[in-house]
Amino acid sequence: MAKKRDDPSIENPENVAGNGLLHRRALLGQGALFAGAAATGLGASLTRAAAEPLVDGAGANQWGRVIAPYQTRSPFESDVVRTLTNPDNLVRNGHARTPHHMLKGMTTPNGLHFSICHSGVPDIDPSEHKLLIHGLVRQPRVFTMDALARYPMVSKIGFLECGGNSAPMFSNEPLQENVQALHGLVSCAEWTGVMLSTLLEEAGVDPRAKWMIAEGADAMRLSRSVPLAKGMDDAMIAFYQNGERIQPEQGYPMRLFLPGYEGNMNVKYLRRLELTEGSAMSYYESRTYSPILPDGTAYQFYFLQEVKSFITEPSPGLTLNEPGFHEISGIAYSGTGRITKVMVSADGGMSWGEAALQDPVLPKAFTRFTMPWRWDGQPAILQSRAWDESGAVQPTRESFIAQRGQTTRPPSVLGFPSQHFNSITSWAVDTNGEVRHVYA
Amino acid sequence: MAKKRDDPSIENPENVAGNGLLHRRALLGQGALFAGAAATGLGASLTRAAAEPLVDGAGANQWGRVIAPYQTRSPFESDVVRTLTNPDNLVRNGHARTPHHMLKGMTTPNGLHFSICHSGVPDIDPSEHKLLIHGLVRQPRVFTMDALARYPMVSKIGFLECGGNSAPMFSNEPLQENVQALHGLVSCAEWTGVMLSTLLEEAGVDPRAKWMIAEGADAMRLSRSVPLAKGMDDAMIAFYQNGERIQPEQGYPMRLFLPGYEGNMNVKYLRRLELTEGSAMSYYESRTYSPILPDGTAYQFYFLQEVKSFITEPSPGLTLNEPGFHEISGIAYSGTGRITKVMVSADGGMSWGEAALQDPVLPKAFTRFTMPWRWDGQPAILQSRAWDESGAVQPTRESFIAQRGQTTRPPSVLGFPSQHFNSITSWAVDTNGEVRHVYA
Repeated sequence: MAKKRDDPSIENPENVAGNGLLHRRALLGQGALFAGAAATGLGASLTRAAAEPLVDGAGANQWGRVIAPYQTRSPFESDVVRTLTNPDNLVRNGHARTPHHMLKGMTTPNGLHFSICHSGVPDIDPSEHKLLIHGLVRQPRVFTMDALARYPMVSKIGFLECGGNSAPMFSNEPLQENVQALHGLVSCAEWTGVMLSTLLEEAGVDPRAKWMIAEGADAMRLSRSVPLAKGMDDAMIAFYQNGERIQPEQGYPMRLFLPGYEGNMNVKYLRRLELTEGSAMSYYESRTYSPILPDGTAYQFYFLQEVKSFITEPSPGLTLNEPGFHEISGIAYSGTGRITKVMVSADGGMSWGEAALQDPVLPKAFTRFTMPWRWDGQPAILQSRAWDESGAVQPTRESFIAQRGQTTRPPSVLGFPSQHFNSITSWAVDTNGEVRHVYA
Repeated sequence: MAKKRDDPSIENPENVAGNGLLHRRALLGQGALFAGAAATGLGASLTRAAAEPLVDGAGANQWGRVIAPYQTRSPFESDVVRTLTNPDNLVRNGHARTPHHMLKGMTTPNGLHFSICHSGVPDIDPSEHKLLIHGLVRQPRVFTMDALARYPMVSKIGFLECGGNSAPMFSNEPLQENVQALHGLVSCAEWTGVMLSTLLEEAGVDPRAKWMIAEGADAMRLSRSVPLAKGMDDAMIAFYQNGERIQPEQGYPMRLFLPGYEGNMNVKYLRRLELTEGSAMSYYESRTYSPILPDGTAYQFYFLQEVKSFITEPSPGLTLNEPGFHEISGIAYSGTGRITKVMVSADGGMSWGEAALQDPVLPKAFTRFTMPWRWDGQPAILQSRAWDESGAVQPTRESFIAQRGQTTRPPSVLGFPSQHFNSITSWAVDTNGEVRHVYA
């Protein structure tokens, strides 16, 4: 833990909290701030521009390669990839985690959106795929892709998070992993499709219906029960992700998108919605997504991904190469609505400063927060904590585990707490600038 | 031209303009609307769900392929590509146009963002690339990528448009091209980087400086003069596009991003900014981007991409397969700020209805507009017209060509009008549902 400091505003009027956190206004009129920072090496000064001929990097200053019909990344970015849990495609599920420590902004590019597939990645022919709506409806209906393409389309920038994201944080000791391993099962994209309410109204909802059973066309026919109220609210049948058709790992040719709800319920390769009176008690809702709480009850049918944030930079693996100015950057989101505030601490929670939120701040979407920080080269513990427009606040670890439990077992073991972790993440910076995961 | 109709609200209270344009509220409480539509085939009804066993498309219902570290598109989407003007990489420039008729939402996915490269696509090693700021500054500075990565980062969702986008529309006869060929040199993405003002303040701007010469590290060292006022306003040195590093065709490892300004000025592979008293009169500002106006003067230093819109669906190549409900969908944007209104006509401009704008409506970004339309199977002429928050309105073709000229020559010929076309686009739908480009 960093030692307690005096009122931070005494040492520097720009300070808003201990251990070098600077006021957001430091981001405006940066001349003075960066004049100092530059002296320690940010922008190297030249006596005369001509005194140092500018040498271009390899690959510059020569005729380049051909423009591609579908362009791809720089070969220098080939290490920016998702980490895989089933690279040999064994007969079990597989995860691909988003490398948040290498990304910026609010958008997750399509190539790096997280995926979990339970029976490999199917390549479904859209001309043969159909969506059936049946059960407690006035008139069962089946829709081809061509038919669905004629309905009004809406777009929503929204996050999608696996209920098991951050499961390693239930461990009673902080696992030495990076932000991708800890929090890589959440991403954010612009989704476009047809409001499910449009299709349900066309089929005609029987008043007895309270649930929908959503079923995919993947080999294991993944199915989940979804409250009909969500289906009539902001649920979408999504066809497009960041402007183009959703990719096979996101459910091509169509998926259910339930803004703010647990990822697994956003059924991919959607083939069927059956309206029912009760829930189906399907495999995933009665097994994986039913961990036992400390009070002995099952944590089941919880749906909502609650308010959460974590710092992506600095984070484990991203070493601070020298003291001086650094920007703390991270992601906040809530399944309830908009993020209203993110507080950041550099002294393990003893003092907090308010982060800047990048516009646009949208409901149920990633909000990028940033905080200027002058690192003095001493140990520091970085934390972030988010609030949403409902007034909900990201819980402390102490209060969270008291309610939800922790484990010494691998968190994926059946029955142990592994779901909907949304407490605070703490990164410790040591005097070498190295960053590791701690509980603080 | 469609025949003039009586007050449209007489035939149907949902109508807001002639030839079947429906009120935006038709998108809410769609039951009645789609009950009718469904009768003509949108969602096929079933007597009993069990009566028609659901047959899945090829590729479903079998174990899929392995999850990829960087996921890619469905093989069924391989025809969604940019069109190229220099596929053999000859020693001249090359264009790649965005297929707007196959995209939705406000985001252009990175693979399909438009590109123009003047000396092929360089693959620059970021560890060797530097940015020099010199000229009329107090202290010239040179920045490595590592140094720039420590500055505060901001994000902006913004469009980028080539000054020559829509150049075929200067033709005095409507060219039979699709929306990709006519308007494919504009795209929209989330850009993240460092505000240029931060770096300029660090270098210290000499009061005599009025311009910046921005120069790229590509083989032809493309350079443009940019008003210093823009550099101190919302200009950005961009490193990220839709969350990941910008791609080589967008200027990897860094580019200048000037929200709302002509694409060519947003210099890619940026290596140098020289502050000067006057403009450089570089190749592109004295030649390509200086067409002659009808009054004999040169149209030079115009920078701003003005308010514009076009319909992407229906559009040439997307045939309406039957009468009944269709959604008209398109894109609007303005280099001045937010879009405030888009009006749509289905009768060649005789009557107009107001389109719905998809949230979020952001300044200098794509705004997706939609309009419900019941096509009666008769000829129709579809148009859109946008307004922005400055009060500017997209000009009619008549007023636009009076001021800016038109040509019988191929519009790319030097000296003929080819730049900053922002007038109305008209699509004619015939009784077969086929769509073609017309002037109306």
